[in-house]
Amino acid sequence: MSQSKPTLHHLNHSQSQRVLWLFEELGVDYDVKFYSRQPVTFRAPPELATVHPMGKSPTLVTADGRAISESTAIITYILRTYDTAGRFSAADWILDEELVSFASSTLGSMIMLQLFSDMTDKTRPRSPIATAAFKQQLTFLSNVLGDKEWFSGDHPGRADFVLSFPFDMIAQRKYVDFDTEYPQLAKYIKRYEARPAWKRGLEKGNGYDLSVF
Amino acid sequence: MSQSKPTLHHLNHSQSQRVLWLFEELGVDYDVKFYSRQPVTFRAPPELATVHPMGKSPTLVTADGRAISESTAIITYILRTYDTAGRFSAADWILDEELVSFASSTLGSMIMLQLFSDMTDKTRPRSPIATAAFKQQLTFLSNVLGDKEWFSGDHPGRADFVLSFPFDMIAQRKYVDFDTEYPQLAKYIKRYEARPAWKRGLEKGNGYDLSVF
Repeated sequence: MSQSKPTLHHLNHSQSQRVLWLFEELGVDYDVKFYSRQPVTFRAPPELATVHPMGKSPTLVTADGRAISESTAIITYILRTYDTAGRFSAADWILDEELVSFASSTLGSMIMLQLFSDMTDKTRPRSPIATAAFKQQLTFLSNVLGDKEWFSGDHPGRADFVLSFPFDMIAQRKYVDFDTEYPQLAKYIKRYEARPAWKRGLEKGNGYDLSVF
Repeated sequence: MSQSKPTLHHLNHSQSQRVLWLFEELGVDYDVKFYSRQPVTFRAPPELATVHPMGKSPTLVTADGRAISESTAIITYILRTYDTAGRFSAADWILDEELVSFASSTLGSMIMLQLFSDMTDKTRPRSPIATAAFKQQLTFLSNVLGDKEWFSGDHPGRADFVLSFPFDMIAQRKYVDFDTEYPQLAKYIKRYEARPAWKRGLEKGNGYDLSVF
C-alpha cells in the first residue's frame, strides 16, 4: 500500500459501500484492502483491530498514515480533503448537520434495535417500537426531500452519502416497502443506485447484501 | 418568547442538559420552554411535535425562527453561531468528527439496545452484547482521553458536550461502574460536573435523572 494514497479498509456487506461510492464520485486515487465477515457471527475479522482499536469497517488510513474510524467522520474527512471545488457541498449546512445526525443516531438506533431483534430470533415479529419509529422517521425524511432530487439540494452531498446506508438496511431487510409506502424515497434510492459511481463502488467491493446477517 | 433570542425546547431527564450546559458556558442570552416526560411511557409530550415534526427534545428554535432537531446539530449550530472567538474549538478536527459520530452511533446504539432491554423487563440481566461493547468502547475512549483534561484538548469542545449524555446514561443507569472500571473517565465526568456552567444548566433545568425511565 502506498502511503501517498488513502487506503479504505473495506468489509463486505457493510456500510463501507457509501465510502466507495464517495471515492468513486470524486475520482480520488485510493487503495482498498478487503475483509470478509466471519462465518456464523458475521462480525468483522480480528485483523481489522490491527488497523484501528475499534476493529470496525470502514476504517480509512489517510495518505499521511492516520487511521480514522466512523463512517460519518470518514465521509467528512474525504469531502474536506478531496472535494476542494465543493462539487458535493450542501445547499443548507444546518439541514446537513441535522440529517447526518438523524441518519446515525435517530434512524440508526432503530435499525440496530430491529437488527438485534432479528439476530436473536428471525421468526420473531417486527418490533412494534421500531415499526412505529420507522413510520415517523421515514415520513419526516420523505417530507424533507419533497420535490428535491437530493437531500443536499441539486446534487448529492454529505447527507446523501451518509443516508444511503440506513436506507439500504431498511430496504434490503424489508423493514418497510419503499415502493408502496414511501414512493418519493423509493425513487430517491433508485436515483443513487443509478449513479455510475455507485455502480463502480459496488463492482469494486466484495459484496453488499445487507440481508445476510 | 422573543424572536431575537434562541429558544431551547427542553425536556426533563433528557439529553437536552448538554445544550443547557453549552449555552451556559457561552453566556448566550436564551429562552427555555420546559416540557415534562409523560407518565408511564416517559415519552416527550405531544406538544413538542408542534415545534418540530420529530417531536423530540432538544429542539432549538433559532433567533430567526428556524427549528433545529438533533443534539449534535444543535450543538454544532450553537458553537458556529455564538463561539466566534473559538473558546470551545477542538484541537484536532478529525478526532472531533470521530468522537461525535462515535458518541451518537457506536456508543449510542449500544445504550439504546440496553435501554430497550431495561424497558421491556428491568429484572432481565444485562445484554451480553451491550456489556461486551461497552467494555471495548469505554476502553477506547479512556485511551483516547489519556492524560488530557478534555477530549477536545485543554478546554471542553464539541466532542465533550456531545459525549456527556452517553456518559451520564451509562453512569446513572449503572451500566458500568466508572470509579472502579474506568477511573480516568470517572475523573473526567467529575470534571465536567464541577464546571459552574454545568451546574447552572442543571439548576435551570427541570430534572436530570436518567434512571427514571
